[in-house]
Amino acid sequence: MNKPTRAADIQKPKVTVGPQRASTKVYSSPPGHDELRVPFREIALTDPAEPAFRVYDPSGPYTDPTITIDVEKGLPRIRDAWNAGRAGIETYDGRTVKPEDNGHVSGTHAARVFPTDYRPMRASNAEPLTQFECARAGIITKEMIYVAHRENLGRAAVLARAKNALADGESFGAELPEHITPEFVRSEIARGRAIIPSNINHGELEPMIIGRNFLVKINANIGNSAVTSSVEEEVEKMVWAIRWGADTVMDLSTGRNIHTTREWIIRNSPVPIGTVPIYQALEKCGGDPVKLTWELYRDTLIEQCEQGVDYFTIHAGVRLPFVPLTANRVTGIVSRGGSIMAKWCLAHHKESFLYERFDEICDLMRKYDVSFSLGDGLRPGSIADANDRAQFAELETLGELTKIAWDKGCQVMIEGPGHVPMHKIKVNMEKQLKACGEAPFYTLGPLTTDIAPGYDHITSGIGAAMIGWFGTSMLCYVTPKEHLGLPNRDDVKVGVITYKIAAHAADLAKGHPAAQLRDDALSRARFDFRWEDQFNLSLDPDTAVAFHDETLPKDAHKVAHFCSMCGPKFCSMKITQDVRDYAATLNDKEVGMAEMSEKFKAMGNEVYLDADEVKKQTSARVPPVSN
Amino acid sequence: MNKPTRAADIQKPKVTVGPQRASTKVYSSPPGHDELRVPFREIALTDPAEPAFRVYDPSGPYTDPTITIDVEKGLPRIRDAWNAGRAGIETYDGRTVKPEDNGHVSGTHAARVFPTDYRPMRASNAEPLTQFECARAGIITKEMIYVAHRENLGRAAVLARAKNALADGESFGAELPEHITPEFVRSEIARGRAIIPSNINHGELEPMIIGRNFLVKINANIGNSAVTSSVEEEVEKMVWAIRWGADTVMDLSTGRNIHTTREWIIRNSPVPIGTVPIYQALEKCGGDPVKLTWELYRDTLIEQCEQGVDYFTIHAGVRLPFVPLTANRVTGIVSRGGSIMAKWCLAHHKESFLYERFDEICDLMRKYDVSFSLGDGLRPGSIADANDRAQFAELETLGELTKIAWDKGCQVMIEGPGHVPMHKIKVNMEKQLKACGEAPFYTLGPLTTDIAPGYDHITSGIGAAMIGWFGTSMLCYVTPKEHLGLPNRDDVKVGVITYKIAAHAADLAKGHPAAQLRDDALSRARFDFRWEDQFNLSLDPDTAVAFHDETLPKDAHKVAHFCSMCGPKFCSMKITQDVRDYAATLNDKEVGMAEMSEKFKAMGNEVYLDADEVKKQTSARVPPVSN
Repeated sequence: MNKPTRAADIQKPKVTVGPQRASTKVYSSPPGHDELRVPFREIALTDPAEPAFRVYDPSGPYTDPTITIDVEKGLPRIRDAWNAGRAGIETYDGRTVKPEDNGHVSGTHAARVFPTDYRPMRASNAEPLTQFECARAGIITKEMIYVAHRENLGRAAVLARAKNALADGESFGAELPEHITPEFVRSEIARGRAIIPSNINHGELEPMIIGRNFLVKINANIGNSAVTSSVEEEVEKMVWAIRWGADTVMDLSTGRNIHTTREWIIRNSPVPIGTVPIYQALEKCGGDPVKLTWELYRDTLIEQCEQGVDYFTIHAGVRLPFVPLTANRVTGIVSRGGSIMAKWCLAHHKESFLYERFDEICDLMRKYDVSFSLGDGLRPGSIADANDRAQFAELETLGELTKIAWDKGCQVMIEGPGHVPMHKIKVNMEKQLKACGEAPFYTLGPLTTDIAPGYDHITSGIGAAMIGWFGTSMLCYVTPKEHLGLPNRDDVKVGVITYKIAAHAADLAKGHPAAQLRDDALSRARFDFRWEDQFNLSLDPDTAVAFHDETLPKDAHKVAHFCSMCGPKFCSMKITQDVRDYAATLNDKEVGMAEMSEKFKAMGNEVYLDADEVKKQTSARVPPVSN
Repeated sequence: MNKPTRAADIQKPKVTVGPQRASTKVYSSPPGHDELRVPFREIALTDPAEPAFRVYDPSGPYTDPTITIDVEKGLPRIRDAWNAGRAGIETYDGRTVKPEDNGHVSGTHAARVFPTDYRPMRASNAEPLTQFECARAGIITKEMIYVAHRENLGRAAVLARAKNALADGESFGAELPEHITPEFVRSEIARGRAIIPSNINHGELEPMIIGRNFLVKINANIGNSAVTSSVEEEVEKMVWAIRWGADTVMDLSTGRNIHTTREWIIRNSPVPIGTVPIYQALEKCGGDPVKLTWELYRDTLIEQCEQGVDYFTIHAGVRLPFVPLTANRVTGIVSRGGSIMAKWCLAHHKESFLYERFDEICDLMRKYDVSFSLGDGLRPGSIADANDRAQFAELETLGELTKIAWDKGCQVMIEGPGHVPMHKIKVNMEKQLKACGEAPFYTLGPLTTDIAPGYDHITSGIGAAMIGWFGTSMLCYVTPKEHLGLPNRDDVKVGVITYKIAAHAADLAKGHPAAQLRDDALSRARFDFRWEDQFNLSLDPDTAVAFHDETLPKDAHKVAHFCSMCGPKFCSMKITQDVRDYAATLNDKEVGMAEMSEKFKAMGNEVYLDADEVKKQTSARVPPVSN
């Protein structure tokens, strides 16, 4: 590849490494598959009666202190070995990087190129290549085995409890199994109900699955823009986003150095990377949508396929006849990709080349197993525009395209809105399932009101939790900066945590059999005044500790049997221990009222019990949790 | 009253005054009632074609720069004149303040006493005194006329649009009228479906209504504790909370100076003040629940009735037989009031005195028109404990008590949970409506997961929006410090804004006829790149501006026709203007495809149009908004 000279102003990216509080990275292999090492995070608890608590962990090697991170080298390419033995894959000389790939940047403005140059792979014949093709052919891939093991976390513990099953949710037609087998994963992918976004050129990927019958996932967007940001910041944003729980990351960079930035991100990313190729294509024609051509777009797709992008947002549903349907909207077309295509269609008065060339796009993406994320270019940008004709006309079209992509062997998910008031959310999910044959839904929010810029992680977190419950497979985060500016490091974290909340609340409500284990573990810690455990089991231990310490900074208070709400003199939580003792006595024998009262007084009417005594009584309630 | 000497360490409280950005306080009188001046906030917009936008405003005189605030004097007692002519009210020598009312505080620890001493009022006979009694007697009070006018905001504008009615929500049985008359308010109160918390001794109150067929309201909790905080901070917290939109404030103070703190708060509060009297009663017996007596509790109620507290949380549903039902919970009894009563019941092995003396409590509260907020002492404190027998047994009891309180002439609302996963929220609302005869529901959250301490404003904001949609009348806020520490100024603001979002999202989804006006006005501003208007129409303009300026600090960017997401070269929003022009031409006449394309090219393929041109085209769409 063509390498610009090293620019002095771009340094080696520095990224955040090291474990979360009290956490250890552990690896577990699916039975009979020692070659697969599925990562989890194990949180140590202070109560000897409580086993370490294992959680799903998309953060990659960055949180494993035994691995030396060298961003210059990229992550280990674990999947290359899996693909090595496969038929129908060829390695070839890739496309040469062109000056326009990086916006004709040169000299000191050019970002340093990633040091290693991998030869790309692609399908060499019609053998099953994509996860979808394999699934349809009855082949269980390594990726399927890997994600089955990953998704099974906690289920064994729940099954062991037998009759105390927690799965009392309302799943709205989702079918969450008690145990996930590789065969189940295969069948879900074959039915088009789930995807494993996994470009064969993204060797660094730790596979994950997106589908209604699996854990609800979240995506974080990063990307520099014409206005601000650098390569270094973007790589760190990716590492930072997955540290807090992002399951996939979209690189939405615009401006210059797009190609180089993306290379650094993919080579260092253990999670699937998504892009919107039309953004780069637009840069290549000077920002003028009218000058876009199929040839230029196709060349951009090849460029990104070879780099290892795992899914592409493609706004092929923005058709010429739908464009006038947006004319009377309050906020018109707010999707950037959608408006680019609308402008192109109007200027040429032609049907969208994405729609007309969809077959060719499928053939290309199939060769690398790049998944479709069919974009909702006509999504509503305000409450007033929710669920209108333009939006649903596009959704129907995405349904047509889904079937074409499946016929071509591609994996597909569907993007959804946007701004939608609560009472109009459910119909979005229902229409999507019907129109798109249950292909996974991937929604932005939706925002449930327009009146809170600065808090749109919250306006949208409400909608995200609800639509996740109703059946959305992945939630695209919204940060506090939405509508106002570009998210910084703190915004990315707040966006990710908010969406982890929404996704987890959805898993609970759907009746995911193991979701409640973490709530229960944290609530037991809370009730037992195991402050450290409460912090460490939370989604953001650092913030929990900092908030606690603001009111009660002394270390002694972290083991205190009281909290800042009531103070040391009285605590409501401890009274329940009295209730338990009382109830236990009631069960022992029939006793008179007066006697009971005397008995309780004889116990000292005490709020505080010995901490060891409390532990002894609670330990019996705790089931072991492991994979 | 008994006044301790002035303590040097307690200064005159300083509070936040002055209008919000671009806002003016306006007063409007209901037809034929010039003596009533109902406050609103009017937001000036930069587009001459857009009228100033009026919003509901609970912030009181603090945001009116024409009024000089003197916390030493308290707010004007506007309601004294309304009560002056009423029969059946007597003024009398109130209870003397006792040393235990302030925790036997003395010397430099004593907070300075509020300078003015008002003689309390109470009912002198059986004439209708409470809003409920008046409503049942067919009397329309000043308070009813006031709140009808307040709630009507925006409805006239919507009605003027006639067929473009926005009310396409799902109300789940709520009946939101197109126009609110004083008679409608009366009938709702008479049916027990709404309350106007308004102790006759709270003369400073600007009345507001809580009920399912009115705007969803929010409450903010403040209060010092044994661990931290001062009088000065608490008054400012109240002023700060209502500045951002709190409709009522609960003073949950514990520790010392409780009586004095509360006096300062009430005398300076334009919103209803609620308390949990058992907290103060507990302080009076040294923090030992076993020593609580009916006499001591009753004396505390009188003390607070005379001060002007508008509603009392009373945990009269925590009955002795229900207490053992909590024994196997993961988090037992988490309500402080509930655990106090549980402890008392167990220690004495007697039925709760709140339950047994409920008639007497009603008779007392009726004399001052203090509303009941029947406490949910057995609410779930974790996902595991949601919707269990203990919780619903108590709810049934609250239903019984509601009917008793109504028979005694009292206003009643019902408190609700707590921690509840999404799929279990709706049944809470349905059971409450049924068991409690549609008395207003007032819920804390609910939190939809336990795993995010530090973000519980969000875990609970999700549940609050949903339960508000289903029919809850008032949402009690949760701050980011929940479970971890005491909220500071920033936490209070974040909690209030989050709950304003939840309440507004609920109003939209219920189909409140005027709710969407603000979303539409803000979205128009967003689409027209009127940045200042977007900021000023938002719930928190200061944060919106700060976030915008982080990325694009220059003043010029606030009038720029682009934003930081796409930069100046390209903007998706502006393309829609092209679409409109195109659609307009389509409507003009039948034209050939090629001709259309030429026409668009002849327009310059331009993204940017002249700003005046844009204004001209948008002004036609804007309806006037006023009361």
